[in-house]
Amino acid sequence: MGHGKHGRKATSKHDGWDVTPADALRVAPGFDLAGFDHASTPGWKHGRKAGEALVARHAAELSELQERLFAEGRSGGARSVLLVLQGMDTAGKGGIVRHVVGLVDPQGVAHRSFGVPTSEEARHHYLWRIRRALPRPGYIGVFDRSHYEDVLVVRVDELVPADVWEKRYDEINRFEERLVEAGTTVVKVALLVSPEEQKKRLLERLDRPDKYWKYNPGDVDSRLRWPAYQEAYQAVLDRTNTEVAPWYAVPADRKWFARLAVSELLLDALRRLDLGWPPADFDVDAERARLLAT
Amino acid sequence: MGHGKHGRKATSKHDGWDVTPADALRVAPGFDLAGFDHASTPGWKHGRKAGEALVARHAAELSELQERLFAEGRSGGARSVLLVLQGMDTAGKGGIVRHVVGLVDPQGVAHRSFGVPTSEEARHHYLWRIRRALPRPGYIGVFDRSHYEDVLVVRVDELVPADVWEKRYDEINRFEERLVEAGTTVVKVALLVSPEEQKKRLLERLDRPDKYWKYNPGDVDSRLRWPAYQEAYQAVLDRTNTEVAPWYAVPADRKWFARLAVSELLLDALRRLDLGWPPADFDVDAERARLLAT
Repeated sequence: MGHGKHGRKATSKHDGWDVTPADALRVAPGFDLAGFDHASTPGWKHGRKAGEALVARHAAELSELQERLFAEGRSGGARSVLLVLQGMDTAGKGGIVRHVVGLVDPQGVAHRSFGVPTSEEARHHYLWRIRRALPRPGYIGVFDRSHYEDVLVVRVDELVPADVWEKRYDEINRFEERLVEAGTTVVKVALLVSPEEQKKRLLERLDRPDKYWKYNPGDVDSRLRWPAYQEAYQAVLDRTNTEVAPWYAVPADRKWFARLAVSELLLDALRRLDLGWPPADFDVDAERARLLAT
Repeated sequence: MGHGKHGRKATSKHDGWDVTPADALRVAPGFDLAGFDHASTPGWKHGRKAGEALVARHAAELSELQERLFAEGRSGGARSVLLVLQGMDTAGKGGIVRHVVGLVDPQGVAHRSFGVPTSEEARHHYLWRIRRALPRPGYIGVFDRSHYEDVLVVRVDELVPADVWEKRYDEINRFEERLVEAGTTVVKVALLVSPEEQKKRLLERLDRPDKYWKYNPGDVDSRLRWPAYQEAYQAVLDRTNTEVAPWYAVPADRKWFARLAVSELLLDALRRLDLGWPPADFDVDAERARLLAT
């Protein structure tokens, strides 16, 4: 820490949190999805207003650290950040992208949504399209859905035999381990919405013509398989919650909290990189003289 | 116009402009770069404060229209927008991306910077990498530099023989014509900075360690070829300023004006698409009943 005007805040206190947001939200061993409170605000000491204010107050630091990361990438650095967003329909992944990722320079963001594989993607290994979308050095990659769909919808809808998806958990862990070794900080966020809140949000999409485009009859089909999805999510959180690429469980019934949580997790990830500004790789005085002569 | 709360502003008046921003900035036949005033604010009746206020005031409309475009793309529409940013080093392309493009949802933006071609790119036709980066339906594509580099730096530095780059103007016009026919609105912006202002901005990069990463000794080399670049830019504006894909000449010595201008040009392009919300492609009542039964 200690690079520039925003660096100091990091170590001062928890800014309204009981513990760090990462500690408050990290999936612990024995985590049980069945007992999860989707409307809770773990670790956060205040309400909505203070939460929104903190997001706004941290925006400048988030943006500056993103720029330092970008600068590092342009100067030969290998590091990057990958934010993985998983959640049932209406969990608020899109809102996170708009309101949290939208706080930083679009130039440094590589956003990618993963839907049903295209015919080309389907001809390859399931990690092929993921590898191609990984953030380059200096970038913040954002995955709206991800390789985890290959052990979620694929498992629930039995799109491949059990012995195929069964092997994927370990494979994903190895994949992410290599990713981290190569310099990518992986922040995996499970946005957890309750079935009641999902119903409300889906109904709202049917009530508002400006939301029709977000509605897909398939969303109700997935909803009907809620217990199977819960089981599949539980398996993901049990089996891919590694030391190098841990999961964060974010209650998503309160949109303001989910946005606060993800913005703080992203900020925390950037702070941990201890980013400075790259030194000049040219002779500053010589360049100044050359420039003044023009 | 007339879709929703923001639609009406479009036809009301020019919101501080003498004429529409598009009319004020569009490159006219006989446009002469040599007589251009880089610090002017063509068509704008007020000063900086009012300009910044207008950008802020139009942000919600810009964002909503972008969402409508995105919704249309998700519902089978073919339309998209491509913002092409060209300009000498320090002209402010990056600032436009951060401050103007940053006003809309990152989910709907496809940003791409074009630098020196990679070895793979160099093996292909110069439009190959451009085609691969074109915005998909519903997206706003942003090119920080573009295929125009293939008649700018390539011409100035004689990277290919004259008879090769000479053919490219017509080829680019045909390429853009097909692009427009396929549903892409092309907004081409030449950010025009004066040599004096460029010198100031380059010196600032040398004075501030947090700006070193933006400085490249090659920038001074380009600067030394200013007249050749002016000639190359003049040729671009003379020969590729078509009816379907016109150029806008934006004075860039005042950053606030360049940002105002591009944000208004982008807004204007979106307004002209007369974007509604896509109708439901499912039976709303039947879906509501199905959902309520869950």
